[in-house]
Amino acid sequence: MHEQDDRTADLGFARVDLDRAARTGDAEVVYGAGKTPEQIVSILTTLHGHHPDRAVLATRLSDEAMHAVEAAGAEVDRVARAATLGPLPTARGTVAVVSAGTSDAPVAAEAMLTARVHGAVVDPITDVGVAGLHRLLGVRDRLERADCLVVVAGMEGALPSVVGGLVGVPLVAVPTSVGYGASLGGIAALLGMLNSCAPGVTVVNIDNGYGAGVFAARVARQSARDDR
Amino acid sequence: MHEQDDRTADLGFARVDLDRAARTGDAEVVYGAGKTPEQIVSILTTLHGHHPDRAVLATRLSDEAMHAVEAAGAEVDRVARAATLGPLPTARGTVAVVSAGTSDAPVAAEAMLTARVHGAVVDPITDVGVAGLHRLLGVRDRLERADCLVVVAGMEGALPSVVGGLVGVPLVAVPTSVGYGASLGGIAALLGMLNSCAPGVTVVNIDNGYGAGVFAARVARQSARDDR
Amino acid sequence: MHEQDDRTADLGFARVDLDRAARTGDAEVVYGAGKTPEQIVSILTTLHGHHPDRAVLATRLSDEAMHAVEAAGAEVDRVARAATLGPLPTARGTVAVVSAGTSDAPVAAEAMLTARVHGAVVDPITDVGVAGLHRLLGVRDRLERADCLVVVAGMEGALPSVVGGLVGVPLVAVPTSVGYGASLGGIAALLGMLNSCAPGVTVVNIDNGYGAGVFAARVARQSARDDR
Amino acid sequence: MHEQDDRTADLGFARVDLDRAARTGDAEVVYGAGKTPEQIVSILTTLHGHHPDRAVLATRLSDEAMHAVEAAGAEVDRVARAATLGPLPTARGTVAVVSAGTSDAPVAAEAMLTARVHGAVVDPITDVGVAGLHRLLGVRDRLERADCLVVVAGMEGALPSVVGGLVGVPLVAVPTSVGYGASLGGIAALLGMLNSCAPGVTVVNIDNGYGAGVFAARVARQSARDDR
Amino acid sequence: MHEQDDRTADLGFARVDLDRAARTGDAEVVYGAGKTPEQIVSILTTLHGHHPDRAVLATRLSDEAMHAVEAAGAEVDRVARAATLGPLPTARGTVAVVSAGTSDAPVAAEAMLTARVHGAVVDPITDVGVAGLHRLLGVRDRLERADCLVVVAGMEGALPSVVGGLVGVPLVAVPTSVGYGASLGGIAALLGMLNSCAPGVTVVNIDNGYGAGVFAARVARQSARDDR
Amino acid sequence: MHEQDDRTADLGFARVDLDRAARTGDAEVVYGAGKTPEQIVSILTTLHGHHPDRAVLATRLSDEAMHAVEAAGAEVDRVARAATLGPLPTARGTVAVVSAGTSDAPVAAEAMLTARVHGAVVDPITDVGVAGLHRLLGVRDRLERADCLVVVAGMEGALPSVVGGLVGVPLVAVPTSVGYGASLGGIAALLGMLNSCAPGVTVVNIDNGYGAGVFAARVARQSARDDR
Amino acid sequence: MHEQDDRTADLGFARVDLDRAARTGDAEVVYGAGKTPEQIVSILTTLHGHHPDRAVLATRLSDEAMHAVEAAGAEVDRVARAATLGPLPTARGTVAVVSAGTSDAPVAAEAMLTARVHGAVVDPITDVGVAGLHRLLGVRDRLERADCLVVVAGMEGALPSVVGGLVGVPLVAVPTSVGYGASLGGIAALLGMLNSCAPGVTVVNIDNGYGAGVFAARVARQSARDDR
Amino acid sequence: MHEQDDRTADLGFARVDLDRAARTGDAEVVYGAGKTPEQIVSILTTLHGHHPDRAVLATRLSDEAMHAVEAAGAEVDRVARAATLGPLPTARGTVAVVSAGTSDAPVAAEAMLTARVHGAVVDPITDVGVAGLHRLLGVRDRLERADCLVVVAGMEGALPSVVGGLVGVPLVAVPTSVGYGASLGGIAALLGMLNSCAPGVTVVNIDNGYGAGVFAARVARQSARDDR
Repeated sequence: MHEQDDRTADLGFARVDLDRAARTGDAEVVYGAGKTPEQIVSILTTLHGHHPDRAVLATRLSDEAMHAVEAAGAEVDRVARAATLGPLPTARGTVAVVSAGTSDAPVAAEAMLTARVHGAVVDPITDVGVAGLHRLLGVRDRLERADCLVVVAGMEGALPSVVGGLVGVPLVAVPTSVGYGASLGGIAALLGMLNSCAPGVTVVNIDNGYGAGVFAARVARQSARDDR
Repeated sequence: MHEQDDRTADLGFARVDLDRAARTGDAEVVYGAGKTPEQIVSILTTLHGHHPDRAVLATRLSDEAMHAVEAAGAEVDRVARAATLGPLPTARGTVAVVSAGTSDAPVAAEAMLTARVHGAVVDPITDVGVAGLHRLLGVRDRLERADCLVVVAGMEGALPSVVGGLVGVPLVAVPTSVGYGASLGGIAALLGMLNSCAPGVTVVNIDNGYGAGVFAARVARQSARDDR
Repeated sequence: MHEQDDRTADLGFARVDLDRAARTGDAEVVYGAGKTPEQIVSILTTLHGHHPDRAVLATRLSDEAMHAVEAAGAEVDRVARAATLGPLPTARGTVAVVSAGTSDAPVAAEAMLTARVHGAVVDPITDVGVAGLHRLLGVRDRLERADCLVVVAGMEGALPSVVGGLVGVPLVAVPTSVGYGASLGGIAALLGMLNSCAPGVTVVNIDNGYGAGVFAARVARQSARDDR
Repeated sequence: MHEQDDRTADLGFARVDLDRAARTGDAEVVYGAGKTPEQIVSILTTLHGHHPDRAVLATRLSDEAMHAVEAAGAEVDRVARAATLGPLPTARGTVAVVSAGTSDAPVAAEAMLTARVHGAVVDPITDVGVAGLHRLLGVRDRLERADCLVVVAGMEGALPSVVGGLVGVPLVAVPTSVGYGASLGGIAALLGMLNSCAPGVTVVNIDNGYGAGVFAARVARQSARDDR
Repeated sequence: MHEQDDRTADLGFARVDLDRAARTGDAEVVYGAGKTPEQIVSILTTLHGHHPDRAVLATRLSDEAMHAVEAAGAEVDRVARAATLGPLPTARGTVAVVSAGTSDAPVAAEAMLTARVHGAVVDPITDVGVAGLHRLLGVRDRLERADCLVVVAGMEGALPSVVGGLVGVPLVAVPTSVGYGASLGGIAALLGMLNSCAPGVTVVNIDNGYGAGVFAARVARQSARDDR
Repeated sequence: MHEQDDRTADLGFARVDLDRAARTGDAEVVYGAGKTPEQIVSILTTLHGHHPDRAVLATRLSDEAMHAVEAAGAEVDRVARAATLGPLPTARGTVAVVSAGTSDAPVAAEAMLTARVHGAVVDPITDVGVAGLHRLLGVRDRLERADCLVVVAGMEGALPSVVGGLVGVPLVAVPTSVGYGASLGGIAALLGMLNSCAPGVTVVNIDNGYGAGVFAARVARQSARDDR
Repeated sequence: MHEQDDRTADLGFARVDLDRAARTGDAEVVYGAGKTPEQIVSILTTLHGHHPDRAVLATRLSDEAMHAVEAAGAEVDRVARAATLGPLPTARGTVAVVSAGTSDAPVAAEAMLTARVHGAVVDPITDVGVAGLHRLLGVRDRLERADCLVVVAGMEGALPSVVGGLVGVPLVAVPTSVGYGASLGGIAALLGMLNSCAPGVTVVNIDNGYGAGVFAARVARQSARDDR
Repeated sequence: MHEQDDRTADLGFARVDLDRAARTGDAEVVYGAGKTPEQIVSILTTLHGHHPDRAVLATRLSDEAMHAVEAAGAEVDRVARAATLGPLPTARGTVAVVSAGTSDAPVAAEAMLTARVHGAVVDPITDVGVAGLHRLLGVRDRLERADCLVVVAGMEGALPSVVGGLVGVPLVAVPTSVGYGASLGGIAALLGMLNSCAPGVTVVNIDNGYGAGVFAARVARQSARDDR
């Protein structure tokens, strides 16, 4: 009834948008949650076929899906549970992804891979929980050199407030679902970040490393210049 | 016991931070909620005395407070319920502040004044609710020309998703407390924005035009360049 | 103690209402959640035996239940996880079921099958997310021709507001549980729809494609006339 | 910067949409909450000036606003806290507005006036709480004759389920904020209605008599025919 | 350190209260959730050994636990997922347990068995949902003859309001977790019952058929005595 | 359209139910919240005129309303913010109303007056907070002599659990809105009571002394009769 | 019926506990919220009359109540909105009360006065928000010297986590209601503190400076010794 | 990029903090949730290798993890689902861990083991639910002899209020997730404890026996002295 156009590929189980990069400048992405490994591979290779010159990203992959996309030629990041197919773009501008410890690692890794796929240099800063301030103070210059910060934290989500008090770099906070009981699946960290006393902190959904990565890469790319 | 230093002025009822701009590059600000007009004027003029060369911002002012700061020489924005004292900085980079209608105007105005005080050019886009798409489509080029977008919406908070689907510019969404019943004082709009299907949307607290303005101006300033 | 009457059939594990159509004009329905395949088949065939001339609907079927009712002669809709037994009624009036993408497909399919079983023509409009407005604008005439709209959306649930701003057709919004984190299992979409800035939007429970289909078919049937 | 067009009138404090009726077929409306009496009168008379042939509706009026619009020639409904200016349209199709008692009267009255302004005949059914079933059973024929039902209830919000079990007419439920403690400002009634065991019940926001009236009138108008 | 007394039996994994009946007049009970079949059998038989003359109740039993206690000589009620060991007491006073349909049956059955074990006659009234009022009206005399009512309902929980409007018998409402989406695991029904417009409705926790049964039996027993 | 009958008196602003006592055996009641003193006096005297032989109850009265009904001949209880007009019934059966301290006094007083008006003897037990157990233990015999207990508590709402562990008398718990912060307007006490570890505790809405009084009096009256 | 004993003084409107100090070793206290100035003065002087040798504390005082108790000889702390009557006890052990800024001052002041009245030395540390870490690091030795810490914070409540990561002193966190929007009246800060990643952080109710002060003073008193 | 230092050991999957004891005086701990048995053993033995002279604690262990750490030489507490490796410290000061029954045993056991590992003597008091007050009253002297109390309770969480009314010892309350329905996974108990009417009650996260144990041991250690 409504005819096929060049901007969409119909795979039967899904209608794939081929036009996203033209519209917003971002990389194509496959959200893997709720899809079978076969479906993910099919979408990934279809998008890659239309855009062989730039990486396609797949996120939220199960163990099976990671195995399947690897067999299909994709590069897999097991911590991020994500993968890319196709060459990564030249990177411009720096996104520093800041996190406290091992539990938040998957979300931080998703943010890092996403920022890289969207064209930013990534600086991982991973040992800087608020309970050990000396380490955070020790990386202050790296925080200041970044064009955009992504700060990942679960439980009480205090890290963005502390980082935001140290430097004036644009900061995107990512609450994670790490915690139990009154963490309410990440709601405590989310509320903490929304109420940050440090001005200029913005927030994305719980565990949304992807969204933070897209946003931060946009900021970093447009901030990059020769004289900095 | 803990001695006075150069970075703080003790007014008796408050200890004023004189050092913020040096630390983060932002303007000084007086958060007016819960303070008397006299206290606000006192803090404002103290900060101005220490920084006569750049504007100090006062937000969340009552009618009485607006009257008092005006008498003290400040420039008042009655819609934003905010004021500035001292010369505004040279503006670099553009922040477009997008809103749908009259109810969200105070929050949008706070965001606009804040972005201007923090050094950005402001482009106000104010007649573009999702229930009248043609107008939004008509300003697409202005949206694309901005270095950062602030999108203000109450009730269901759908505007950021629609704007975020049109352009790839970094977008900060501000939920407002406009609404009743199941809007839960802005929680419905907040949740809507956090769950936006458009990638790269970040969110601040309900009615927090100030925070969005600070963040967007930081992004705009560092994105500004001669060749754009 | 309370005697059996003609309006109920006692199957031991359930007492089946045989009188619903007479009371409200609707089709009989078996809600499959929490029932064994055997129980579903038993109720379905009992109802069919009493009403061989019109379709009985079964919803929320497990894979096993879909297999079992198919073996019992029912027509199965695998996307909707629903089935019908018996001839579909003559259709009068049109229900357009609008949704954005693949994740909401099961709920949209349940709404479509339900509307069809309850006597309406169904027009499926499935590629019209708010992040790609041109497609939605492209189907405006189909939206206007419908007698009732069912609009299905998860995450922030913005689609009903956008559709409701385009046309004045009665609109039933169905929030889905698609999302994660602050989507709170569909609560974010539900709140968004209840607070829609478009007048005349009504809402049903999360994932309740069935309820929306019943309601929309009622409106469509009574709106159908020769001169439209 | 963005020029004035024919579809909007700029009153300084508000930009009035003059085009709504053309787009959706609905009456113009002024939402009075948060506006001064002078602003309401100004918008009301501006809209009336552009559409002298059909009624403009104003809702959520304070005592002062009711006085002011009355002085400006509007017809005031003090229970609904609403007013109309201009001739009411010819009515087609019937909306029955059902409520239990005096506390819910303002919301029911808003729904009734809205439905009338939007072109429907209104049948008020006001003494039918679930704690006195005989009265509800006594008006069953009036319920069945309606083209659409609006059912208004606070506290536990049980009335729509009982009405929805009696007749198969399309039913819009309106929860009200009547109650205290665990009514949570109407949330209890809202949840009750969303979970109604009667199929085909749709719901609007708490106290949203206006939205229910718009929707019900749309259904009633398109259902009206000579042979009913 | 704190010595064993006659009122407790130490089973190693649990310290069993042997004194409850003396203190409150109620039957002994084993709450089976979270206990192994072996533990349940051990507690049940220990309590039975101390009180061979009256029934001990076990609730919330898994399939395995039902099998195990049956093998140990207990009488099992598979719908209630409960069992009794020892002779039931002479029954005095009547508890009518009212419910709408099959989904609420397990909670209603738990209430019925509990009331019987606690010494009341039970009258089960099970086909009386609010969507079919004629059946409820048909059992009005049975409702009035009871000494206490237990009314079980899920989803919107409207049944207690309707029953409470018909008769003045003490009424305990039991919300169930039957439902989905905005039922919030029974919270919607719980809130509905707490806000009932019928005076004299009291409420217990979600799915707490046991608590309602204990309470109702206490009321029924004391309402049926000669010596007062 | 719907004619006046004997069971209702139309006062213009309200339609007064004259038939309640016949239907449920309870006293007539005027819920004063949201009504003017004049309206309350009018309803009260109308009901009294139809039932001069038994007391009519008015609750939730403002200072002005208490003054007005007193002038109209009613007996006012200033702590309960309630009043009665007409002779109190002969009392049968005892309701003990238990509370901890002064803050909960208004709710306890409403429960006591309501129970008395509905025909029960009332025993007030008011100095028994859980932080001073010796006093509670000192009144154990009074607790056991009652036919029904009403236990009123705010903050954490622990009192019903402690009382329910002491005696086996039917117990209705009333949470109050006394508290601040995480008491959430009485929700904390409400949840505490619903989760009581003492079996046989039932609960009413926050601050609903009236509902508890009606229920308890029903239980007490039927527990004290010769003819059963 | 229940006779007056030595441990209570009956003032008509309140029954004053005279025995608290003997039971728990704490000072007597009058919670002023919801009491008239006259009532507060009456209770305060009654308690003082029975315990002339040690201070009685009154909290949550209105402006009028502060004036009244001052006239009655009490020492008033206007920031804490609290007062004492009678000599303060000899102080042993140190409680450091840590807060970030002016908005949290009233709660911090209540904690400080309470701790002092309950027998502890108080060390106020008030300029140490997480957005200015250097100041907090500068007072580390004072934090370590304390026997117990009370850490007061609103908005995101991050301060206890940072302090708890610096030192191993017992720490009681007090969330305040300072904030707006998603702070939910202090719930955000409360949840943040409950989820603190620093071990050994305990929490009291929102704005409950009194409770924190009582607890901290108990810890400090019993920790005080000569050799520290 | 950021070099390894002496205070951290890099295990590949985790960076282990070796410096915690020096900073806060507490024992090292491995939080087992979400880690594989191999990872837990590896971290445990690494920490033990660096601190062979004092116990390392591992909490929240699965059955497999308990088996693995036991094989690695650790002492396992199966009720607490925790283990220690290395010699326990000399104990000073007493922590009494108070709980009501078997369901709360795992959380109480975690608190007890943690307090012991952190250097306190532990007094377990486990049969003192609020529904059997005589037992609680019977251990009053043990409560008073303790330097700090940990009170563990699920469902309505009333036990801390009752204990806090008996003695003036510092009290940490631990809500547990024991319960169903309106217990909301422990939120009801948490709210109850935060609103305790007994002064000086502090609270930790739901099921956080570890946090309570750390805090209580700190208080007990510093309170211990020869003359008590």
